[in-house]
Amino acid sequence: MTPPGLGDNRDKPAYRASGRGENRDKPAYRASGEGPDDRAVCVIGLGLIGGSLLRAAVRAGRTAWGSAASAADAEAASAEGFDVTTTVDDALTRAAEADALVVLAVPLPAADGVLRRVRRHAPTCRLTDVVSVKAPMAEVVARLAPQARYVGGHPMAGASRSGWAAGRADLFEGAAWVVAADEGLDLEVWADVAALALATGAAVVPAAIDEHDAAVARISHLPHVMAAVLAAVGSAGGPLALSLAAGSFRDGTRVAGSSAELVTAMCEGNRGALLGAVDDALGRLGAARGSLASTGGLAATIGAGHQARLTLDEYTPPQAIADLTVPDPLAKLRELGRAGGRVVGLQTAHDGLRPS
Amino acid sequence: MTPPGLGDNRDKPAYRASGRGENRDKPAYRASGEGPDDRAVCVIGLGLIGGSLLRAAVRAGRTAWGSAASAADAEAASAEGFDVTTTVDDALTRAAEADALVVLAVPLPAADGVLRRVRRHAPTCRLTDVVSVKAPMAEVVARLAPQARYVGGHPMAGASRSGWAAGRADLFEGAAWVVAADEGLDLEVWADVAALALATGAAVVPAAIDEHDAAVARISHLPHVMAAVLAAVGSAGGPLALSLAAGSFRDGTRVAGSSAELVTAMCEGNRGALLGAVDDALGRLGAARGSLASTGGLAATIGAGHQARLTLDEYTPPQAIADLTVPDPLAKLRELGRAGGRVVGLQTAHDGLRPS
Repeated sequence: MTPPGLGDNRDKPAYRASGRGENRDKPAYRASGEGPDDRAVCVIGLGLIGGSLLRAAVRAGRTAWGSAASAADAEAASAEGFDVTTTVDDALTRAAEADALVVLAVPLPAADGVLRRVRRHAPTCRLTDVVSVKAPMAEVVARLAPQARYVGGHPMAGASRSGWAAGRADLFEGAAWVVAADEGLDLEVWADVAALALATGAAVVPAAIDEHDAAVARISHLPHVMAAVLAAVGSAGGPLALSLAAGSFRDGTRVAGSSAELVTAMCEGNRGALLGAVDDALGRLGAARGSLASTGGLAATIGAGHQARLTLDEYTPPQAIADLTVPDPLAKLRELGRAGGRVVGLQTAHDGLRPS
Repeated sequence: MTPPGLGDNRDKPAYRASGRGENRDKPAYRASGEGPDDRAVCVIGLGLIGGSLLRAAVRAGRTAWGSAASAADAEAASAEGFDVTTTVDDALTRAAEADALVVLAVPLPAADGVLRRVRRHAPTCRLTDVVSVKAPMAEVVARLAPQARYVGGHPMAGASRSGWAAGRADLFEGAAWVVAADEGLDLEVWADVAALALATGAAVVPAAIDEHDAAVARISHLPHVMAAVLAAVGSAGGPLALSLAAGSFRDGTRVAGSSAELVTAMCEGNRGALLGAVDDALGRLGAARGSLASTGGLAATIGAGHQARLTLDEYTPPQAIADLTVPDPLAKLRELGRAGGRVVGLQTAHDGLRPS
């Protein structure tokens, strides 16, 4: 399973501005022969995403364990037969010993505390995360756990409920799972993260982190802001308005039912890119207002929205096998992701073609 | 079935500013003994709503016929055994002869042409409609068919598809069906319209037309504008953004998939009230933008939206029997609708309690 071709990249600068190169003396793989497809997984945080990932990893045959901040969640997970502790330190120490892939599955505001534990107990671990903003996360990793071999991730899956009980092993099936593909990232860990995503049934979308953050501001964070605004405007119409609320209002405000705390943290975490998306929405909504007030016409607004939705409905992502043995694999992967493509399998010099 | 109590209101001024009182010499009901529960129904326009209504009326045992502008739709409906013509004039002449309830089920921009036919072939008919704006519709009826006994209606049901083929007999089951309840409306026709709505499985929401228009601007028309804006902002993010579009974006833009022509006509028809709703949304979105830019905080916006959505989720409409025999029944009905209540049965002096 060891992809020898990846070794060619070990002389490249690491992704982060600080801490680059610290891993050069580590062997590519442990003697145990672990590769991306059988690497152990340590999930820190067992909410909806982390809890679903632990279930999916175990279902895929991985050795996997996790830690939950909530004693109740840890008990519930243990009762269901999962290997779970409430002690982050223990989970991380075990990850360091097993050369496991550590998955940070806590909200961005909680990442600081966990990363300080990583620096102490598993400083050079293989590290990824599931947070919906990637540039702020990369910054905090570089600051607090600079030696970690970090490749950011973002599974595009969710639900209006949260917590361990809301999780399920098939949450990621068919979903897009962004894996950061900026120049200089550790290709070995990239393969680990991509393989884990594929093992859960997701397809990998490689993207530069700034391009990811700009895209999710438009199609994930802005929808939450718009849903909140729409819900408030509707509710301000009083009981008669709520009584008449039909499909368009219910659909348009569904995600406003999600945890306000989590949504706020998610949106605030992508402040820069979200500001751009909100400005775009304000501009278009203001133009609609102006047209409605002046000529009474809304055809341009409604027509453009209809066309955009048709584009989405007709969109079929091109699928590809990620070949990590070619020159400049990350540049090619970014190009694939930018064109809307998805990775559904990994190819390395060692193991040939491995469909998901 | 004849509700004698309704006769008490025949000395009141009719709803419309023009044409009031023309119906005073008409007998309350024909000798045939027709009442609201067995009144024949003539549906003009067999798109999603009209086509569903014709099916639902027949299913409820009514004598019902319709006319479709599209020959293909008329043929399809006839082939399914429905009594359908392409000639509006024939359908209306028959309605005048049978003292049927005429349901205008065409978009607002097409109403003018049909109302000129009404004036010619069924000038004093019992008339309702299914258009989503009520004040503009009342104005055009008063102008073009001033003698018609008009009580506006608005079933809050829809689908992203349109046309006869998209219709179904159960479209209105459990839906709210607004019936105009302004002072001076013809109570006999009010009972006809309410009884038809109940027969389709809907619950009746009585409302003054200006209150209706303000409410639907917030919970039906604004959601379409917001969905169009959101779809355009997302699509402007290019293939990567579309590739990452998950539930929040898909839900938030679903209604942008509806016919742009119909949505535009619907929104433009409620210009005045929609402007107010758009301004409210612009204000709230602008406030979110300001807060995000200055302090980075979105908790107020997200929190208010979450609370509003919870209010919607927890909302259970009070149900009532509409008693048309009491003094000032329309005032009481408006009060019920304003409080978010729904009519699920009609009571008249003649027929006692009639649950839906």
